[in-house]
Formats: sequence, structure tokens, C-alpha cells
Amino acid sequence: MTADRSTSNPISDVRMRGFARRTTVANTLVWLDDHLQALPPESVPLAELAGRVLARDIVSQVDVPAFARSMMDGYAVVANDTLGASSYNRLALQVVGEVLPGQPPQVGVKPGQAVRIMTGAALPAGADAVLPVEKVAVEKVAVEKVPAEGERIFAQDAVPPGKNVGRIGEDIPRGSTLLQSGRRLRPQDVGVLSSIGITVADVVRQPRVRIVVTGNELLPPGSVPRDFQIVDANSPMLAALIARDGGLPINPGIIADDPESILEAMRDDADIVLVSGGSSVGKEDHAPVLLRQQGNLAIHGIAMRPSSPAGMGTLDERLVFLLPGNPVSCLCAYDFFAGRAIRVFAGNAAEWPYRQSQFPLRRKLVSTVGRLDYARVKLIDGQAEPLAISGASVLSSTTRADGFVVVEDDCEGYPDRAVVTVHLYDLF
Amino acid sequence: MTADRSTSNPISDVRMRGFARRTTVANTLVWLDDHLQALPPESVPLAELAGRVLARDIVSQVDVPAFARSMMDGYAVVANDTLGASSYNRLALQVVGEVLPGQPPQVGVKPGQAVRIMTGAALPAGADAVLPVEKVAVEKVAVEKVPAEGERIFAQDAVPPGKNVGRIGEDIPRGSTLLQSGRRLRPQDVGVLSSIGITVADVVRQPRVRIVVTGNELLPPGSVPRDFQIVDANSPMLAALIARDGGLPINPGIIADDPESILEAMRDDADIVLVSGGSSVGKEDHAPVLLRQQGNLAIHGIAMRPSSPAGMGTLDERLVFLLPGNPVSCLCAYDFFAGRAIRVFAGNAAEWPYRQSQFPLRRKLVSTVGRLDYARVKLIDGQAEPLAISGASVLSSTTRADGFVVVEDDCEGYPDRAVVTVHLYDLF
Repeated sequence: MTADRSTSNPISDVRMRGFARRTTVANTLVWLDDHLQALPPESVPLAELAGRVLARDIVSQVDVPAFARSMMDGYAVVANDTLGASSYNRLALQVVGEVLPGQPPQVGVKPGQAVRIMTGAALPAGADAVLPVEKVAVEKVAVEKVPAEGERIFAQDAVPPGKNVGRIGEDIPRGSTLLQSGRRLRPQDVGVLSSIGITVADVVRQPRVRIVVTGNELLPPGSVPRDFQIVDANSPMLAALIARDGGLPINPGIIADDPESILEAMRDDADIVLVSGGSSVGKEDHAPVLLRQQGNLAIHGIAMRPSSPAGMGTLDERLVFLLPGNPVSCLCAYDFFAGRAIRVFAGNAAEWPYRQSQFPLRRKLVSTVGRLDYARVKLIDGQAEPLAISGASVLSSTTRADGFVVVEDDCEGYPDRAVVTVHLYDLF
Repeated sequence: MTADRSTSNPISDVRMRGFARRTTVANTLVWLDDHLQALPPESVPLAELAGRVLARDIVSQVDVPAFARSMMDGYAVVANDTLGASSYNRLALQVVGEVLPGQPPQVGVKPGQAVRIMTGAALPAGADAVLPVEKVAVEKVAVEKVPAEGERIFAQDAVPPGKNVGRIGEDIPRGSTLLQSGRRLRPQDVGVLSSIGITVADVVRQPRVRIVVTGNELLPPGSVPRDFQIVDANSPMLAALIARDGGLPINPGIIADDPESILEAMRDDADIVLVSGGSSVGKEDHAPVLLRQQGNLAIHGIAMRPSSPAGMGTLDERLVFLLPGNPVSCLCAYDFFAGRAIRVFAGNAAEWPYRQSQFPLRRKLVSTVGRLDYARVKLIDGQAEPLAISGASVLSSTTRADGFVVVEDDCEGYPDRAVVTVHLYDLF
């Protein structure tokens, strides 16, 4: 992230006068993307690596396997001894010992001999193949009976040299690059890292994201709404969104709606600050003024619906997002801007984590040219029903919507039955 | 989950003799699904609810809004006063006060009057609409100037009664069901729960999943492989998979490869036990024998590749999965069976969390009728390249694969260029 950049159009105080003009979403994203890059690496222990993003290539310091080993449970043999073996031509071999995983082989294998071997055990000297247990008949068949040392087995199939044997370095040669920088580590990646002896790995640091919720009308989460106060919906929502996108939410509670308290909170030890409430043009909206005075209010007022009062800028080295207090607008501005920043800072792809799917509209979806719409829809019988995009039902609509349709700002909307792309809120 | 059920075919000891016959994946899933249901509820605080699954409907105990409130920053007015107002016909109103969010209105609105009002503030008596700040001209235009009490404003647009006002209970009426049992809570759901005064909610309890990794050849994660020992790849992988699917991994370390230690670990306080290693037919494979003797080894040996040695059953009230020690087989058996159980226990959908996408094959994908294949593929230039499904490169192949194709057991595979469904390991 780079430090403050001046914009060519200084933004005046819009309190109680409204936005003179709004920045397009496309231009907002140009500014934003210019301020985004993955954070520097940090070392993280193995058990916490799943989902993190590698900051450096992983080069194996070991050979896998480190020794020639059996890939099956069976018998280590001289492959040539099994030539021509079948269930109609069983070839006898003398069992001369066994080798278990983790142990050095105590005995070698000569022609006509076999050593019992378990998957993962080291191949004894002289053996060059493993005859799987399923291809072997034992001399005496009895339940619970396992051939003991000195008994005979019968090969019922042939194995070529090297069969069912893992050679040294065959899987992962020492010095090879196993995983590349930028990889989001999957559970199985963590398993492989463990097996090559990795105890910590350098991954992209997770952004610390300070949630600054302001508003004298707000009660903290866990309160019951009373009198003319309402309970903060945004900080619990934002905390969950931040965690989803790879950030570490810092959410100490509601901030008093005065400039000193807000500025102090905005200057907390964080990479990204999300200010919710007090971001619009109401008289009490301190945050944009503070950002303009103390940092750089690069964008304030965006040509989109909802969340047109959103803004962003920089304060010292922090990226600051002004999110409207209305929960739907807050979610929309998060989805478009703040979430993108958190994902890129955390090393993830900028794109939404939402799955996309195509659905026909259940009724027409009207939009206004010059403004991008984040149109929430509910899926009913395989069709997308547009929900009220603003108005009184904003809170409940966030739970009714299954996803959203983006109507670009050069589009008047879509007719009934038009097939649209829905971004689904459920990740899976 | 129901207790042990006897199977019609008792499973004999397969150690060092191989599986007489294998259960089909379809029949295995029939047994499994008969043992799966969501766990009982537990109460969880608001801040930890995201991603959890509701065990009961959420019925709102409050009206939202609890009072008639402004949906915009602007002026509370008598709607009738604005009739005919436009930018060419500005109608004057006297500002008689203001009302801020969270505060009771101190003043009413009479015809010809206006009260400054912020979004979310309670509508003063007498007012029936809010004129947005953007629709208002002030008497003196000056930067930083906000009209004070006693000054005049000019309505430049008309607002009908009720405009920009949220009525009591209009959004969420008291007594209405807001979210239904079974809902996987999204970040925005948590926000809405907060705003209706929810402090804890009953959600499906997360299954406790005990990881039992056995094998004397294994070193604990964090070790460097040495001599003939290898480092455990499965417990870190399984822990991450369990967490992904909604379970709580219990992973205290590698268990000594003796029956007493394994049985004690399998009897740990858990809902589900995953035993990895010692599940095949090698001499040292104690877990299947223990499960047969002490509980119910319902299935052992499955007609699939890899992970044919997998098994499952019940021990007291626990569901036990026997996962092969080979990391790819372990992942496959987890994906098909254990992950499904964890998801359903946690209240989630049984289906894989993986996204599906269609790709043409880069070369033919051969399978054997009578056996289901979990064929891992790498995506190259928009095509799916099948990777070796077994053999020495199993460990590295888990990192090379981008996903997998399921080849059903009645299918011989697919020719080059055939379009197949790939289940993608990256969730997003």
C-alpha cells in the first residue's frame, strides 16, 4: 500500500448539503486497486496454515520417499521369481522374515525367498518388488492364520521389477519446488508440508482491520433495543465478513460520536479501518471531515445504489473505508470495496468469494443509467425475484436475499424473464 | 445417530489375507446416511454465530423499527407542504429544531415548519415525511454553512406522506419468524440477529472429531523425516478438513500402534472418530479388529480407488471411520464418507463443499467397472489432465491436483476430449 495520494478534485464538506457529484464505481476501483497489494510475510506454524497464502515458494529439503519403500501390504520378493505365476501356476516362496514401517530391514531377500512387508516399510536388500497380499496364497488356510517365518507362500501373480516400490525421491525430489508463492493452502497441502518436515511457513500476513462503529443512537450488540435507540448490526456483520475474507477483525465496541474519539479509533494499530455510521452527509458525520483534514479523503459519494454515501481514503499508512450505517448499504460497500482490500492484503484473489449462477428474473429489474445497482434477489422456483433495493424493509431484506445481481451503470435494468448472473451469498 | 446395527454379513479378520469382497460406494452411503443426523442444539453467543446452523426458528421479540424513523438525512416535514415544489418552484419552510438519532424528538412540526433530522432519528410529532437533504436549498449558500434553527430552507421537490419514513414494525414485525431452523448463518444474518436484541442463539452443536493416527513409522508433525520414519501428513490435513466441514478436531498426537492405546483413543469423548493408518489388511492393522470386537465393524473394504481399505462402524455411540494411511486414500475416504458425516452432524448439507465445473479431458481417463474412481485432475489450459491415481507420486499429486472427477463403478472411464465434471478443491 502506498501512502496518501492527492486527488485532482478536493472534496468539500458535504454535510447537510449532499454530494455535488459522485465517483463511478469503475473509477473508485481504479483508485482502490492502486492502493492494494499483499501485506509482507509472517511465519506461521503448520497447524495454522490451512487457508493462508504462501508468501514464498516451498522447496523440499528432503527426498520423498527418503528410502525405497513398499507401496502395498504384501511380500518383498525378487521380481524374477514371480515370472509366470498365476492362480493356475502358483510359485512357492520361503518367508524368511518381516519388515515393519519405521524399522530398518533386519534380513535380505534371496531368490526363492520373501519377506513380509507392510505399506511404507523399507524394502529389504535383494528385493526389487512387492507382491501384494491379495496375490498370495498361504500354505494353510485358516481364519486368523497369518503365515509365520519359515512357512511358505505361493505367488499367484507376477510382478515386474520395481512394482509396488517407491524409489528414493520419486514422489518429491529434494530441491524441487513443491508449492508456489501465492498458493492458498488447502488441507492436503498442509499434510504434504508436514511430511516434508516443514514446521513453519512464510505466509502473507493477515490484515488487522479496525471496525469503528459510531452513532449515539446505537446500543452494543447483545443489548435489547429500547427507547429511540437501536442495536448495532454492523459490527457483528463486519467482523464475520472480515474473518471470511482473511482479515483479523478488531472490534472493541461502539465509539462515541465525537471527532476526538473517532479520530483516535481511526488511528488504532491496523492496516485497514472500516468506519460505519457517520459516513454520510448528516450533520453528525464526522468521519469524512476527519479523513479530509487528517489524511486523504480520496473518494466520497459513489454512483451506486445502495451505499452512495460510501467513501474511502488514507490516514497515515492505513486504508480507511467509510461505510454507510444502513446495514444493507454497509454490506454493499463492504462487498464492493472493503472486502476487496482485505482479500488482496491477505494475499487472496480480489474477486468476490461468491459463487455465480444464472437465473431468469421473476419480474423486471429496473435501474437508472449513471448509477450501478447492487440488486438483491431471492431465488424462488429457480427464478430470481428482485427485492426492494431500499426503503423500510432494508434490515429484513438482508436475510431474505439469496444473492445479488450487479446492474452496471450503463444499463437500465433487465426485463422480466431475462437471464441474469446472481452472486450467491452462501459460499457452499 | 443410532447405536450399533448388526449387518447381515459379519466381517472376518482380513489381516494379511485381503478383502474377500468389497462393499460398493452406493451401499456404503446407504449405511452411512442411516447413521447421520444433526446433533442436538447448543446455545452460542452472537459473536460466534457466523457459519453455524440454526437449530430453532428465530422469532423476533421486537418491532423493527421500534418507532417511526427517518430513512434519510434531511428535514421532517408535513408532506402536504411540499406539494408542487420543484427547483423552479421552491417552497419555503421554517426550521424549528432538529432531532438526532437515539434521542427523543424535542419539538413537533406544524404546517410550514421543518425539523432537521438524521437517518434513523425518530420522526417528530406532526411530521409525516422526510425531505432528503439533496432536495433542499438553504437560504445562504456558503461552504461549511449548515442552516441553523430559525432559518429557512426551500423544498425543491415534493414528498408524499410516509416518504422516507420507516413505520413501526414495517421492516420486522414483532412475532414474525425471521430465520428458519437449518439456516447456515451468514455475516448479514448475524447483523440482523444483533439488531433484534439476540444475544445467544440455539445452533446445531459442532461434532467433536477425534483424530487417531497410528503407526510406529510416523513422526509427529513438526519433525524432520529421518531414518526409516516419515512425518505424519494426515492429522494436519484431517484437522483442517474437519474444521472446514464444521467439526471440532481433537488431535492430541500420534497413538502407539498397540491395541490398548488405539482402543483407548477410539473411546475418547467424541462424536466421530477418524482412525488413520492401521486400517488396511497389514499385520499391524489393529483398528478394524478392535472395532469388530468392541463395537460394530459395519463396512470394511470398499469398491473404490483409492481408499479401498477404508471402513466404518460404530463404537458405543461414536461413528468410527477407518481411513487408509496413504494421504491420497485418506483424503478420498474423508471426502466420500467422514466429511459427509461431519457436515450432517454439524447441520450442514451432506453434499461436498466443492464447486463443480465442466472441463474437457486432456487425455482419456480409464477406470474399471465394478469400482468407483476418485480421479484427481490438474487443470491445464481449460482442460482436465488426469493424474496418476496411485503409485509412488501419491504425496506430491495431492498438491498438483486442482480437483477430482468421480468415475462411477458402472463406467469404464471417459475418452480423450470428453467433458467431465470436476469437483474443485479450492472452495473460492
